[in-house]
Amino acid sequence: MPRASVSVVGSSAATARESAWAEEVGRLLAQNGIVLICGGMGGVMEAACRGAKSAGGLTVGILPVANRDGGNAFLDVVIPTGMGYARNAIVVYSGEAVIAIGGSSGTLSEIAYATIKSIPVVTLGSWRLKERELSHGMCPIPARTPAEAVEKVLELVGR
Amino acid sequence: MPRASVSVVGSSAATARESAWAEEVGRLLAQNGIVLICGGMGGVMEAACRGAKSAGGLTVGILPVANRDGGNAFLDVVIPTGMGYARNAIVVYSGEAVIAIGGSSGTLSEIAYATIKSIPVVTLGSWRLKERELSHGMCPIPARTPAEAVEKVLELVGR
Amino acid sequence: MPRASVSVVGSSAATARESAWAEEVGRLLAQNGIVLICGGMGGVMEAACRGAKSAGGLTVGILPVANRDGGNAFLDVVIPTGMGYARNAIVVYSGEAVIAIGGSSGTLSEIAYATIKSIPVVTLGSWRLKERELSHGMCPIPARTPAEAVEKVLELVGR
Amino acid sequence: MPRASVSVVGSSAATARESAWAEEVGRLLAQNGIVLICGGMGGVMEAACRGAKSAGGLTVGILPVANRDGGNAFLDVVIPTGMGYARNAIVVYSGEAVIAIGGSSGTLSEIAYATIKSIPVVTLGSWRLKERELSHGMCPIPARTPAEAVEKVLELVGR
Repeated sequence: MPRASVSVVGSSAATARESAWAEEVGRLLAQNGIVLICGGMGGVMEAACRGAKSAGGLTVGILPVANRDGGNAFLDVVIPTGMGYARNAIVVYSGEAVIAIGGSSGTLSEIAYATIKSIPVVTLGSWRLKERELSHGMCPIPARTPAEAVEKVLELVGR
Repeated sequence: MPRASVSVVGSSAATARESAWAEEVGRLLAQNGIVLICGGMGGVMEAACRGAKSAGGLTVGILPVANRDGGNAFLDVVIPTGMGYARNAIVVYSGEAVIAIGGSSGTLSEIAYATIKSIPVVTLGSWRLKERELSHGMCPIPARTPAEAVEKVLELVGR
Repeated sequence: MPRASVSVVGSSAATARESAWAEEVGRLLAQNGIVLICGGMGGVMEAACRGAKSAGGLTVGILPVANRDGGNAFLDVVIPTGMGYARNAIVVYSGEAVIAIGGSSGTLSEIAYATIKSIPVVTLGSWRLKERELSHGMCPIPARTPAEAVEKVLELVGR
Repeated sequence: MPRASVSVVGSSAATARESAWAEEVGRLLAQNGIVLICGGMGGVMEAACRGAKSAGGLTVGILPVANRDGGNAFLDVVIPTGMGYARNAIVVYSGEAVIAIGGSSGTLSEIAYATIKSIPVVTLGSWRLKERELSHGMCPIPARTPAEAVEKVLELVGR
């Protein structure tokens, strides 16, 4: 069975608060033995990876570009796709759950893919979608802190 | 220069109202000489194609499956991708503008991709996103009728 | 039922002979009412499209880039994928048969995809693969002239 | 900098000899601290993963399906793409070098992608392509044994 994995998604142009959240999320996931999946670029992705590496975690970056050297400096495994934003689907499919930080359009596409595939999403300062609007899948669950986000995710993936 | 093209997106499990809207949208686009791009499956996609063919339009289906015979019965050109929902990005990129009908999660991913790429979106009974939540790109423009949706799209693509 | 479609594949850096072959292939396909599918770029692709348009045919370009304006000047329908070379699979899936002109590595990937999917391939000055080496699918069929290539393809797709 | 990674490609319907080769290749890569990248399914892929895990290596499967549980039993990290054979490009891009075992059509597409991207390929009982036929990129290097294949790959990636 593959190792437990959670995808952290968010903008490559993160605010300071979003970056701080992401780093703490990455650190907490690593402390709980969870593999960090992300899009491999800067901003939220880089901060989450930095946090995970600070706690000895394993990090995986699914890159929009086609070359191994296109990702951030905190990746153990790089998956260059050459698919641009269409790789967002793969980032989401690779986690047992998703933590979405901040509210860019790319993040919205990732929440949409998670909903399509019934992969649970916990949000930190991200899109708020209404239950009745979702034709299938679960509604994203808002959290107020990185610790709460990771706690909810650990429950969702049964750890 | 390629022919003017508009993508119509919406659920394969459309309501009767959504199907009626989609058929009228397809018919009006064809009457204006616009190529109809869609995901090639049932529901909103099939209804839009049926409408377009009733007015002699050209229809293109970008299929989630890998085989040419996997689409609806009203397609002139089939593009089997074998990529499942990740083909949603390609459906959006292929239009100069997008008309989104109804509110499924797949449609949400398509609105997100349009916003990422600054491709204008007109909506009929679909997701309402708030301007301030969108980090970049334009906000989807709601329309009340198929005629209004097509009129707005024709303005947006400069016809 | 979708219109009959054939994919023409070959290098964007074609020789003069390959370009002349491609233009003639495009023209003959159009004269037979076949939609031309290609990768939408220069070289063999552009020459095939130019030939098809000279005979009033319909041309479709499945682009490696994500923008509608990234293809050659002879495309009616553009499908921007943003997937780079991974779009080669889609180019192949979209035809009932493939005509491969010249011998680049991209063309080899397209012959491989056609073989995987049992889509027949006719070659003009392209890779020669041996029957016994192919685990499944048909072996590419060599032709000596554009007319012979199109004739073989018309037989293969039952026209 | 990401960990050193090599992609092992080959058929999901491997012969006994190919499976034995793949298992030995996986074991030797792991003993040299190399991350094993593969398509995550059976046959050559599963045998290589089994070998890598027997030596405590890290294994990554880039799956054709969209679900995390679709791969073989020896994967640490699963990347479900939902892209079918189009994921072959991603498998190749993710390694610093490729070892190709056996001669299926899927393997041919992977050798083609490696050549396009100038990623070195070492082959064991696989396709033999001629230098003059390759428009760019290196020609695959044949090896006679798993040990020779891994030795050549270690040289190529500079370890």
